[in-house]
Amino acid sequence: MKKSSLTSEEKQFFMDEAIKEAHKALEFAEVPIGAVVVLNKQIIGRGYNLRETTQDALRHAEMTAIEEACNNIGSWRLEDAQLFATLEPCPMCSGAILQSRIEEVYFGAFDPKAGACGSLINLLEDTRFNHWCYVESDVLAKTCAALLSDFFKKIRAEKKQKKKEISEKD
Amino acid sequence: MKKSSLTSEEKQFFMDEAIKEAHKALEFAEVPIGAVVVLNKQIIGRGYNLRETTQDALRHAEMTAIEEACNNIGSWRLEDAQLFATLEPCPMCSGAILQSRIEEVYFGAFDPKAGACGSLINLLEDTRFNHWCYVESDVLAKTCAALLSDFFKKIRAEKKQKKKEISEKD
Repeated sequence: MKKSSLTSEEKQFFMDEAIKEAHKALEFAEVPIGAVVVLNKQIIGRGYNLRETTQDALRHAEMTAIEEACNNIGSWRLEDAQLFATLEPCPMCSGAILQSRIEEVYFGAFDPKAGACGSLINLLEDTRFNHWCYVESDVLAKTCAALLSDFFKKIRAEKKQKKKEISEKD
Repeated sequence: MKKSSLTSEEKQFFMDEAIKEAHKALEFAEVPIGAVVVLNKQIIGRGYNLRETTQDALRHAEMTAIEEACNNIGSWRLEDAQLFATLEPCPMCSGAILQSRIEEVYFGAFDPKAGACGSLINLLEDTRFNHWCYVESDVLAKTCAALLSDFFKKIRAEKKQKKKEISEKD
């Protein structure tokens, strides 16, 4: 069994940083998901969802954070690093976590529709692969989940308003 | 059940193009894996493994091909597209295939240690996710597998030679 190397305070601090990244996505009207990669208690990679803005399917928060971390330390091996994500990583991001040998993964809210760290599958703890991780869910989960539910509530309200405007014009 | 939209000749033609990409990886002394993304019988994305050269964990052949395809058509949605890869995609690349909504996936050799399209898991045909694909294996499999086995044979021979040289010096 792998173990966490961080204190509760450290976990909350770094998840707060991932939440700050999620807020940056909001500024681009993107689904608010953020991530950071941490090594020796320092943030070495940051990322937020930019799929619509870039029209690039790979631009999830975790992918950008991992890419930046690799560039920062000049190595594809992020051994001994931790990843914090506001939402449970999808298969692509979980696969990137395995590829980069990240040691510990912390996430906020579960993603029952696409999560690959326990919800639909559990890629990060599958010991048949050549790497596996320590995984901890529910870190500042309420804040992370509220970010998403508020975003989708706003989208639905805007759609309803537009529909109303169109029907009033007719 | 999803179906293939390509003839045998087309499949061989596009896998040959993926093999050409794998040869480009060899020029950088990288593990020879290549990929192309095809839309309306045209190649819209190409990629080859560049993990060691770039020291970026995301630089698998399929990822670069998908990214280039998105950039080329200005959309993260690669619906109706096909992906050809010389080796069975790993979880990260399979996840990227799901994310980009690629319709058909063709690969050459199976990867029993890390394959996510039938070997260890089967991400692309898991209908619990919001997208799934038509998957065909063993397209020019012998050529794709020989590329890899020749590469690793050469690496082993070089290591043996170096060891011999060192022991002769002592």
